[in-house]
Amino acid sequence: MALHPIRSLPDRYPEDKIFWTWSDVPTWRAQQTSLESLPVMKLTTSAAGVYAIAPTPFDPDGAVDLPSIDRMMDFYVGCGVTGLTILGVMGEAPKLEAKESLEVVHRVLMRAGGLPIVVGVSAPGFAAMRALARESMELGAAGVMIAPPSNLRTDEQITGYYRQAAAAIGAEIPFVIQDYPLNFQVVMTPKVIREIVRENPSCVMLKHEDWPGLEKISALRVFQAEGSMRPVSILCGNGGLFLDFEMERGADGAMTGYAFPDMLVDVVRLSAAGERGKAHNLFDAHLPLLRYEQQPGVGLAVRKYVLQRRGAIASDAQRAPSTALSAKARAEVDFLLERLARVDRRAAL
Amino acid sequence: MALHPIRSLPDRYPEDKIFWTWSDVPTWRAQQTSLESLPVMKLTTSAAGVYAIAPTPFDPDGAVDLPSIDRMMDFYVGCGVTGLTILGVMGEAPKLEAKESLEVVHRVLMRAGGLPIVVGVSAPGFAAMRALARESMELGAAGVMIAPPSNLRTDEQITGYYRQAAAAIGAEIPFVIQDYPLNFQVVMTPKVIREIVRENPSCVMLKHEDWPGLEKISALRVFQAEGSMRPVSILCGNGGLFLDFEMERGADGAMTGYAFPDMLVDVVRLSAAGERGKAHNLFDAHLPLLRYEQQPGVGLAVRKYVLQRRGAIASDAQRAPSTALSAKARAEVDFLLERLARVDRRAAL
Amino acid sequence: MALHPIRSLPDRYPEDKIFWTWSDVPTWRAQQTSLESLPVMKLTTSAAGVYAIAPTPFDPDGAVDLPSIDRMMDFYVGCGVTGLTILGVMGEAPKLEAKESLEVVHRVLMRAGGLPIVVGVSAPGFAAMRALARESMELGAAGVMIAPPSNLRTDEQITGYYRQAAAAIGAEIPFVIQDYPLNFQVVMTPKVIREIVRENPSCVMLKHEDWPGLEKISALRVFQAEGSMRPVSILCGNGGLFLDFEMERGADGAMTGYAFPDMLVDVVRLSAAGERGKAHNLFDAHLPLLRYEQQPGVGLAVRKYVLQRRGAIASDAQRAPSTALSAKARAEVDFLLERLARVDRRAAL
Amino acid sequence: MALHPIRSLPDRYPEDKIFWTWSDVPTWRAQQTSLESLPVMKLTTSAAGVYAIAPTPFDPDGAVDLPSIDRMMDFYVGCGVTGLTILGVMGEAPKLEAKESLEVVHRVLMRAGGLPIVVGVSAPGFAAMRALARESMELGAAGVMIAPPSNLRTDEQITGYYRQAAAAIGAEIPFVIQDYPLNFQVVMTPKVIREIVRENPSCVMLKHEDWPGLEKISALRVFQAEGSMRPVSILCGNGGLFLDFEMERGADGAMTGYAFPDMLVDVVRLSAAGERGKAHNLFDAHLPLLRYEQQPGVGLAVRKYVLQRRGAIASDAQRAPSTALSAKARAEVDFLLERLARVDRRAAL
Repeated sequence: MALHPIRSLPDRYPEDKIFWTWSDVPTWRAQQTSLESLPVMKLTTSAAGVYAIAPTPFDPDGAVDLPSIDRMMDFYVGCGVTGLTILGVMGEAPKLEAKESLEVVHRVLMRAGGLPIVVGVSAPGFAAMRALARESMELGAAGVMIAPPSNLRTDEQITGYYRQAAAAIGAEIPFVIQDYPLNFQVVMTPKVIREIVRENPSCVMLKHEDWPGLEKISALRVFQAEGSMRPVSILCGNGGLFLDFEMERGADGAMTGYAFPDMLVDVVRLSAAGERGKAHNLFDAHLPLLRYEQQPGVGLAVRKYVLQRRGAIASDAQRAPSTALSAKARAEVDFLLERLARVDRRAAL
Repeated sequence: MALHPIRSLPDRYPEDKIFWTWSDVPTWRAQQTSLESLPVMKLTTSAAGVYAIAPTPFDPDGAVDLPSIDRMMDFYVGCGVTGLTILGVMGEAPKLEAKESLEVVHRVLMRAGGLPIVVGVSAPGFAAMRALARESMELGAAGVMIAPPSNLRTDEQITGYYRQAAAAIGAEIPFVIQDYPLNFQVVMTPKVIREIVRENPSCVMLKHEDWPGLEKISALRVFQAEGSMRPVSILCGNGGLFLDFEMERGADGAMTGYAFPDMLVDVVRLSAAGERGKAHNLFDAHLPLLRYEQQPGVGLAVRKYVLQRRGAIASDAQRAPSTALSAKARAEVDFLLERLARVDRRAAL
Repeated sequence: MALHPIRSLPDRYPEDKIFWTWSDVPTWRAQQTSLESLPVMKLTTSAAGVYAIAPTPFDPDGAVDLPSIDRMMDFYVGCGVTGLTILGVMGEAPKLEAKESLEVVHRVLMRAGGLPIVVGVSAPGFAAMRALARESMELGAAGVMIAPPSNLRTDEQITGYYRQAAAAIGAEIPFVIQDYPLNFQVVMTPKVIREIVRENPSCVMLKHEDWPGLEKISALRVFQAEGSMRPVSILCGNGGLFLDFEMERGADGAMTGYAFPDMLVDVVRLSAAGERGKAHNLFDAHLPLLRYEQQPGVGLAVRKYVLQRRGAIASDAQRAPSTALSAKARAEVDFLLERLARVDRRAAL
Repeated sequence: MALHPIRSLPDRYPEDKIFWTWSDVPTWRAQQTSLESLPVMKLTTSAAGVYAIAPTPFDPDGAVDLPSIDRMMDFYVGCGVTGLTILGVMGEAPKLEAKESLEVVHRVLMRAGGLPIVVGVSAPGFAAMRALARESMELGAAGVMIAPPSNLRTDEQITGYYRQAAAAIGAEIPFVIQDYPLNFQVVMTPKVIREIVRENPSCVMLKHEDWPGLEKISALRVFQAEGSMRPVSILCGNGGLFLDFEMERGADGAMTGYAFPDMLVDVVRLSAAGERGKAHNLFDAHLPLLRYEQQPGVGLAVRKYVLQRRGAIASDAQRAPSTALSAKARAEVDFLLERLARVDRRAAL
């Protein structure tokens, strides 16, 4: 059902630990040299698996670190992800100038090797949203993601906004609804999501990160089953904090930035295969770190630090304004990584 | 340092499981028949250990279930808690009429056996706050807890509010600051907390549930160490989601409603004893359930359900307006309880 | 169409000024000595005219000033209001203890002389709301007003809340929706109001104080005209800041606390009589003061100060927490009152 | 004290009405043909008078209407304003692409004839803020305006943000604090503003639009008088709703978008000259329209409609998303304009 098959696991993990470093990731493919040679696939409602939310790598001085994008792309591909989402909240998108955003999109697509790339195009105005969406699609993106502005309150304001946004970018560009009330202060009921899906044929996916959100997945799947809503892909965010149960409620996978996307890939695979116990065992082993990473505000610093330790990016620098990790917090993350490394992952897989 | 020594563990758990039912809890003391016989101890800045946040038990028809209060009190005492907090957010306090609140306070104190009881007295106006605070103290409460109204924004508004609240209830009543931005939308910096402590000698404790909040504990302890703030007790809430590290950052314990207060007691004890690995092992075993219980809105339903399954209360009913657990959610909680029951807790303890 | 005819004006104003003091108000009726002798009329959907929002008078030491309630009631009756609303936002209702609220209701009704009284019963929980609503109705109130709690976001949450509230107080008590987003942060679309009206036969009135709100009145009247909503009374709040146009959009009158309810009465009468120019002339003459009084936070202090100057209450004291008028602000109000007193009101009337 | 003397009035108004049309505005100067010939003056703390907030003119199809910028500039100059602020909230700045913003800045400066221009550079990230600020200053802007992002809560977050923003744009660019809680949900106390002024020598002005806000002006002027804060310019916004008293409290003038900037100029001049009665008379005559224009959300539509009727811009079109005026609302504005036109302004001036 996924756009891309979830790759087999055994060659990706070392034998004896779940915590692995960059050197463990096989470089599995030749590097791209141009975008022309790639087929462009658009995001569809049958998207499934894990779309990792990628950070934007920066140098310590605040410049976009383009070489790290290549390295990071290889890392994600090596983790077995199905796709990638860039320029989201975690991608520090609002801190980039318009031309920098395009540079990031271009570099990512050059290295994506055909992996579908979703580009966050949320913007205070439709002019900037439209420009980034169209330019990204021309470069080969698979679709775009749109978050609601935080001043929307009523059901009508929300559906009206998505109607206008879909019209602004154009009906031929598939888009993802980002439903993240904790961050955007906009609350969408299942009926509102159904209405957005009904009104906008180009809406293909829900990035689900309501909290709590399990009942919302169930409600949407009931809508589908009873025929009152056409099927859309539901990928779950929120750092993966409820991924274990979200899969069981009917989600198609994850779209989130946890720094062990390989774990997300395994949990989604195990859950889809009905291996409930194994899925929970693996998930629970990561939960202490995952919870630590899911802290608002400081979470991105944790993620970038772990990704740096895993070799996926050269520096964990964020562009200002940002929250840095204290020495104590770094030690806590190190402690959690050590505990994670001691888990016998073979038991689960 | 605690008002009450943390009791020894072995007699409280059955041998082979961490999940135990009501029948496992030893009835360790004779029942009270009057409040007069009890010494009244006031809450001080040296309070430590676990103050469980207790729910208010209701009948399925919405009436306060007074007999369940007795049962629940014995349960908490059996779990080894140091104290109790009632009529907080989890206690559905705003749903009670004034006279019902007093009935609950009275019944709890009748059964508390000397355990210090903190009463949530947050109210839209100081008249109601003062009345409940004074009547509770006369009945034998140890102190009161005050949350900020959600319209406070600036530092001065927050410190001004606590100054007025402390004056309203009277300087002889020890009070606890409830710092819970996710719920109340009021953000207090460490400096603001220091100022509240400085201005109000009757402030003895911080119920810490900022999120993220680890750096806040460290900052407050630095204030103490450098002499810019007198010591206060810091007990942590947020369902205990970061209790493992909060203890290591300098917290004195927990004040939260997780339905396994016995685990909280053990983690606090182990952490205070320097048994870091054991503390984390035990904590991590509970984290999947704890996380599930910590969901906003639906969390109370989960807690009451688990407390009912453990025999602590007769019904998991909430008073309207409330969010009920779906059949799927109940099954998920049951699943987590089963997994928890299989954990070998002797390994940790 | 109104429950009570709007009284004729000439005997209420002195000849040469619009600004008048207490001594100008005729005492038009014998004082009540018991509630039994009064017929109890319930609020209906045909309510119209001006329902003044009354403050709660306090002594400078913070006690409820019951004698001032009598004086204030005579003032409002003398101003020609159709009804009164008590214990609203302006009534400092959340600062009262439950028993004080009932005392205020009782005293007001003793002096109301049959004027319909609406009681604000908004409360954090339904138990307190139900208790105050039922006790007020037993004392002879005409209906109750319910504001939404500030955490409601979605359309379904809002309609669900009113369904539960209406059930909690009982279907036989007529209630008023208070739609005041600036204060409560809850935004109700016309469709949501229509749904509340549809689901709850006991809903008889909308206290309209959305801002901007003119289009909302028009939308609701279109719903009525097309038959998709049964008629309800619409009385406008927001200090009367748009009363001139609200009447022209189809409102039935005002429910607000501007300290010159006599002006509101005249504007409603003139507008209903098609005297557009006169209505605007009179309204515009008051607008500088009305605007000053409509400031959030400090507005109540202005109102109480003017009501005190007009002799309607003995003291402009508010119960803590409150915002006091600075000397400069008092001088500004005095300046505005002086300017208002110089207006030739005969030109308008 | 002002950067530019407030121009004399008599040649600007026709004899018999306060409401005048485009043809009444004298074209007082030759058009610019290049920016090189202009002296560039930077904004200083002695700025005073009226800085009109200018809209961004659009064609009905949504394109920026550059020719209307010329016309609009001549209109503002003809009204006697001291300066202009562009790309603010009213300028629909977030709806522009980066390159469009620069085009607007360039066109405005080409026609400004030396009038100081303040450019709104608020942006979600410092990269875009810095780019627009530096490019605008190179084109000849006098300074920039920075609004706080709506997620700031504590005093430290606010001062920290301005410290970072000032560093990001560079210490040589004078900036204006925009203090507009109703729109941005960020509340700054006088002490916070004093701290921003203290920490950032490049802060030269406060755009004051807190509501209520009179006491804030007094508090800041007390800080200055007692020597705890260096003097800064205070220009008031909020549509001018309290300009009459703001001047008397110590404001230096207005920075707002009311569609009759000529009235603002007169009120500021009269108030500065001690002509209190005249200032209030003129202000009060405009208050009914000013209040109508000051409605959140719909206010911009009213302003553009009036500016179009006055001939200042060719179309009142806004770029989506936007709120349009209903036919009823247009008729109401027309009615208010007619009433305004009948006022005898000579009485005041």
